[in-house]
Amino acid sequence: MNARPGIAVAPDTRPDMHAAFTEAVISAGGQPAPLGEAGALVWADPYAADGFPEIIARAPHAEWIQLPYAGVELFAEHFDRDHVWTCGKGVYSEPVAEYAVAAMLTAFRDFHLFARARSWPAQTGRSLFGANVTVLGAGGITRSLMRLLEPWGCRMTVVRRSPEPFEGAHLTLTGTHRHIAVADADAVVVALALTPSTRHVIDAALLEAMPAAAWLINVGRGGHVDHDALARALRTGSIAGAVLDVTEPEPLPDSSELWSLPNCVISPHVGNTPEMGLPLIAGRVHENVTRWLTGQELIGLVDPDLGY
Amino acid sequence: MNARPGIAVAPDTRPDMHAAFTEAVISAGGQPAPLGEAGALVWADPYAADGFPEIIARAPHAEWIQLPYAGVELFAEHFDRDHVWTCGKGVYSEPVAEYAVAAMLTAFRDFHLFARARSWPAQTGRSLFGANVTVLGAGGITRSLMRLLEPWGCRMTVVRRSPEPFEGAHLTLTGTHRHIAVADADAVVVALALTPSTRHVIDAALLEAMPAAAWLINVGRGGHVDHDALARALRTGSIAGAVLDVTEPEPLPDSSELWSLPNCVISPHVGNTPEMGLPLIAGRVHENVTRWLTGQELIGLVDPDLGY
Repeated sequence: MNARPGIAVAPDTRPDMHAAFTEAVISAGGQPAPLGEAGALVWADPYAADGFPEIIARAPHAEWIQLPYAGVELFAEHFDRDHVWTCGKGVYSEPVAEYAVAAMLTAFRDFHLFARARSWPAQTGRSLFGANVTVLGAGGITRSLMRLLEPWGCRMTVVRRSPEPFEGAHLTLTGTHRHIAVADADAVVVALALTPSTRHVIDAALLEAMPAAAWLINVGRGGHVDHDALARALRTGSIAGAVLDVTEPEPLPDSSELWSLPNCVISPHVGNTPEMGLPLIAGRVHENVTRWLTGQELIGLVDPDLGY
Repeated sequence: MNARPGIAVAPDTRPDMHAAFTEAVISAGGQPAPLGEAGALVWADPYAADGFPEIIARAPHAEWIQLPYAGVELFAEHFDRDHVWTCGKGVYSEPVAEYAVAAMLTAFRDFHLFARARSWPAQTGRSLFGANVTVLGAGGITRSLMRLLEPWGCRMTVVRRSPEPFEGAHLTLTGTHRHIAVADADAVVVALALTPSTRHVIDAALLEAMPAAAWLINVGRGGHVDHDALARALRTGSIAGAVLDVTEPEPLPDSSELWSLPNCVISPHVGNTPEMGLPLIAGRVHENVTRWLTGQELIGLVDPDLGY
């Protein structure tokens, strides 16, 4: 008999994730258990939120629920104070920050144009050295992004909820000053959690406040951007371009005007790909199972009221 | 009367460069002079090598000749030991290293595919974190590249003429071991000077020695790569892809097969664009004029025998 309460891994709709999480539970000294006997639940499908309430109901003894992604908006309506909630917060920050740098360099050095060329193109491009980069959001992605951009000597402005200066930023502003924060930006990176208060934070007014030479990089969620306003800004050249790793909806339908705009690059939510992300989140599951079994504080705690 | 010998800036075929160099000469305390009276010559057109011998002949008192680019192969046949030769060596290393990072990130994160997409593409991409990067060449570009890649924790292999370990590289190998140096590379970056001994250094055998997952990044000269062998390697998938900022000839003709290969990205020699490069080389001219006038050693000395 094992005295420690077991840990359920569910659902099994994503076999590779289910297998990796089960292995992480076992390697951390945990005991896989059926839902009815489990003291904790590791959720193993980032998108199967519909089945969530039913499975939770079948795990009446689960005190802790680990979610797989950093963004938890699909699960937010189910949050309660009866459980401790954790997510993948911070786990994916390095690949996502890398994506943001790749997007900025693609945009600044015109690789989107060169990739499409079938004939010697014009000699264009600008440098990221010393550029003004404004990041909306002050989480793990922003921290990783500042680390990767350090050799470029960019002037970093961070926009966050609290007025506390973000370490390494040249300027930290709160959300109410976001129009000022983007006014001299060469690139604006959205790295926020999606909540009711950040929905459409990139609206017509914010796009209007950006310089005509600025690029928008969205590694947050599609809902952060008013796509109609963005399409207008891209069409009229009121901003230089946009790189979107997230859209609303996903997949973005073929009928979207954004596909046809030459200054818009869309990638299919690959800030971290499943291949990049699975070992990282499995590592987090391992770490949290270890912590839970030994009574330490869990990492990546979700605040049910804030929704992230 | 000004006792210092004057400095000629010629030819005037590139008015912006001529103006910037003349200003650099004056701001460094130099005296612009006609060719016949000049003690030094600042060459102000990177491509007008044909007129070089005639203009040199008209400047019999010139002891020092400053060339505008880092690569001087167009002028190499005119090198002699009667003059001190300097070039833009090292000046452009930061923008070119930035280009190489942009190329690697474009390739690894599949931005070349996303830029072309008109419909939600497959979720692909790999990370540069911890990748094996092999650089052919041990000059300023390599130094800048290592600085930019430092946060990515790449394993860096440098291939150079001398066996002296390159600072910061995990492994330094001489050119005779280049096939070993690329054998486990995720990216191979060509950052060499073009000389008779480096022509077609990327040939069928070297491409064959690279892993199927490896990308070739050429920021050296088109002549470093056997384009026929490269096209074959790209077509058969014996390497993953290539990003070429330099080709032979330039512009690359529309008839080149390379334009049509989906795993090949060609940019029009923009490692540094004229806009990025002109202030950098003008700064070098200023620095060297100061040094020449005060009898200090010049920067960017060309060895007439080595040809770079």
